[in-house]
Amino acid sequence: MQRALQYIESNKERYLSELKEFLAIPSVSSQSTHNGDMQRCAQWVADHMRTIGMQNVKVMPTPGHPVVYSEWLGAPGAPTVLLYGHYDVQPVDPLNLWTSPPFEMTIRGEQIFARGAADDKGQVFIHFKSIEAIMKQSGKLPVNIKMLIEGEEEVGSENLDNFVKDHTELLKADLVLISDSSMFAKDVPSICYALRGLSYLEIEVTGPNKDLHSGSFGGSVHNPIQALSEMIASLHDKNGKVTIPGFYNKVRALSKAERTAFAKLPFKEKEYAKDLGVKELYGEKGFSSLERVWARPTLECNGIWGGYTGEGAKTVLPSKAFAKISCRLVPDQDSASIAKMVEKHLKKIAPKTIQIQVRNLHGGEAAITPINSPGVQAAIVALEKGFGKKPLYQREGGSIPIVVQFKKLLGLDTVLLGFGLPDENAHSPNEFLNINNFYGGIKTSVHFFNELPNFWKGKSKK
Amino acid sequence: MQRALQYIESNKERYLSELKEFLAIPSVSSQSTHNGDMQRCAQWVADHMRTIGMQNVKVMPTPGHPVVYSEWLGAPGAPTVLLYGHYDVQPVDPLNLWTSPPFEMTIRGEQIFARGAADDKGQVFIHFKSIEAIMKQSGKLPVNIKMLIEGEEEVGSENLDNFVKDHTELLKADLVLISDSSMFAKDVPSICYALRGLSYLEIEVTGPNKDLHSGSFGGSVHNPIQALSEMIASLHDKNGKVTIPGFYNKVRALSKAERTAFAKLPFKEKEYAKDLGVKELYGEKGFSSLERVWARPTLECNGIWGGYTGEGAKTVLPSKAFAKISCRLVPDQDSASIAKMVEKHLKKIAPKTIQIQVRNLHGGEAAITPINSPGVQAAIVALEKGFGKKPLYQREGGSIPIVVQFKKLLGLDTVLLGFGLPDENAHSPNEFLNINNFYGGIKTSVHFFNELPNFWKGKSKK
Repeated sequence: MQRALQYIESNKERYLSELKEFLAIPSVSSQSTHNGDMQRCAQWVADHMRTIGMQNVKVMPTPGHPVVYSEWLGAPGAPTVLLYGHYDVQPVDPLNLWTSPPFEMTIRGEQIFARGAADDKGQVFIHFKSIEAIMKQSGKLPVNIKMLIEGEEEVGSENLDNFVKDHTELLKADLVLISDSSMFAKDVPSICYALRGLSYLEIEVTGPNKDLHSGSFGGSVHNPIQALSEMIASLHDKNGKVTIPGFYNKVRALSKAERTAFAKLPFKEKEYAKDLGVKELYGEKGFSSLERVWARPTLECNGIWGGYTGEGAKTVLPSKAFAKISCRLVPDQDSASIAKMVEKHLKKIAPKTIQIQVRNLHGGEAAITPINSPGVQAAIVALEKGFGKKPLYQREGGSIPIVVQFKKLLGLDTVLLGFGLPDENAHSPNEFLNINNFYGGIKTSVHFFNELPNFWKGKSKK
Repeated sequence: MQRALQYIESNKERYLSELKEFLAIPSVSSQSTHNGDMQRCAQWVADHMRTIGMQNVKVMPTPGHPVVYSEWLGAPGAPTVLLYGHYDVQPVDPLNLWTSPPFEMTIRGEQIFARGAADDKGQVFIHFKSIEAIMKQSGKLPVNIKMLIEGEEEVGSENLDNFVKDHTELLKADLVLISDSSMFAKDVPSICYALRGLSYLEIEVTGPNKDLHSGSFGGSVHNPIQALSEMIASLHDKNGKVTIPGFYNKVRALSKAERTAFAKLPFKEKEYAKDLGVKELYGEKGFSSLERVWARPTLECNGIWGGYTGEGAKTVLPSKAFAKISCRLVPDQDSASIAKMVEKHLKKIAPKTIQIQVRNLHGGEAAITPINSPGVQAAIVALEKGFGKKPLYQREGGSIPIVVQFKKLLGLDTVLLGFGLPDENAHSPNEFLNINNFYGGIKTSVHFFNELPNFWKGKSKK
């Protein structure tokens, strides 16, 4: 172990120059002019996997951009880690806002600037380099590793579901490791162990059977915009709680330990409000902002429209009004049940003066990897050793669909080991990865692979 | 009088063939390809005015289409009527939905079909023919008449305001007569004596300073769509009353006589609801639907928008949400005061979690011509004589800006003597004027000019 860490220290410069090579390939998955670059990048990843000692390396075609697979299975009895990442990147426009060219890696101060530095090439490369260090020093790894590096994450991973379904045997593992997210803040290593789920619905309210003149008819029928507004307004009570009966029934309560852990994070509500430009925050009474967005289910209007929305005035009393609303869900809520519950409630509260249609657009489940699971425990120790600092626990309010899919299709929990920073400009000009996080990440990865078997002992395995 | 009516009877066919000529000119004011037709139509109107005995006939230029003016001022001591109408028409698209060509007047059953038959050439022509009948039989009129027939009504009468302002002396009169509206129903002659006014505002609600990811932030800030919905929902109470303090303060109460008159109209709430496709009507408690739309102020949402409004789902928590709302006003509300009142109230109820901007887009006053005024009284008698049936009193929920402008610029009340029908397709294919209303209208016009001086006696005049 110590030798692997020394190897990293003495190869620091080479690691950077290889990362520069990787980042120089403009692997923009959404732009067909870069299709050749995508192939070239997949090949680079495959070649690099071979260099660091991975076996059975394959560039596997999909209907879109290829997946790069490899494995090292020489640790019988040890757990198998499925490392997921992606080699494709976001477009670079607007180019003129970049301080240095997006595909010429440039270090300024503590930051490594380039498109893909954080999202996700840099973070994939972190694990490549830790594996290289361990393999070069001891000729073997303490765990089995399978790598699944795809090329379509930035375009919705359209073909990944089918790829996983078609290769369940090949991808069989004990847990998934993903480094495609951020630490809580600079110098605040953290482990994210839960994501929220989603139920997304569209509401269509119909009042009169055609658009009416608001002068000749205003006052005689229920305006569908007004009716929709009344319904939306009624979905939260004065304490910011969602009023839909049963909405909170299956919510897994926050443990005291979690609340204490969140409270330790360097987060100030006043600064958060100031950053967002609001005078006062809003949310469910009895919970902090972090608790609200990470561990409480919420209901948001994502869109609303109806009547005249152009410039100036038009005196219309519209026939229809629409809204898109979505609920963010937490364990152990079920997205299909919540969608039905919301639909039923909306139909119940709809006044007789209008008609309502509710469409369930899509949904996904929340994900949680228990804090006391071996993967999270190993990550905690690894982060502390890698960054010299006890990491903090965090959750995330959004969803990462692939995490839910790995659970659904392969039955695997995911460890999210993010080395980015919240302000890394992942989809904007001047994307960067902090250089301390780059080296700290490589060390953390070494420790993670080393620690995992210790925590795994006595646990059931596939 | 009797001889004038006989003259009408014996010239029925010629009247129709002249109307056909008038309707054959495609005077579409909004399409510049018809600019020549507009000139030709103005000339036709002027020539026709001369034929029926009008004097000082002038085609008067404006920055747009010309106004046609004429007068007959040979009745000293009698009141002066300013007859307003328009010779321009709406476009005819979609042409394929017309049963007969729009500019070839065609009679089918009781209806005279052509673009402009009802709106407004046919109704202007009704007065031309009554004047012709009186003049041919007695060589003079019982009242003084000034005619102001414009060519830009269908494009917003853009140049009329300035025209009126520039010719206040020329247009000096005792009352305005307009036939550009409809009777309450077929065989239900009615007199419309009041119109509602308008205050139109736009609301902009700003929550966070940029669009946010609804997963990462949902639950921590007040969603501007939700906040806007909550505000809109609060603007009506459970009885359908507007909750803005002071909103009803200056409302002129409906008299018992008016309520009785409205109740006599052949109007069934159930059929009205069925026609509009709603199961239940909605409105201010304690008032009938007709009272609500004609004589009570109301507040409607004319438009709402915010967030994602495209196909499918986008998990955005938007920065902004907008609404357009308008109040319909009744005497003696003042549109500027109401706009200020609404703005003040919205700012008062806006929660601290968001910011609000309110823009006053435009407004106009309500108009009422007292039922006991000589003009309305003369119209009542004239309609009864013209149609053989006691007319009913009605108001109208919309606004007719020109009525407000005549009051404002010339100090004149307007008598609205509508001979159209509610289903006349005024702006659609197959526009028509009922042939009985055409002849009944001419007779009514004769009686109106004849009766007016009787009611005028003893009234103050300009």
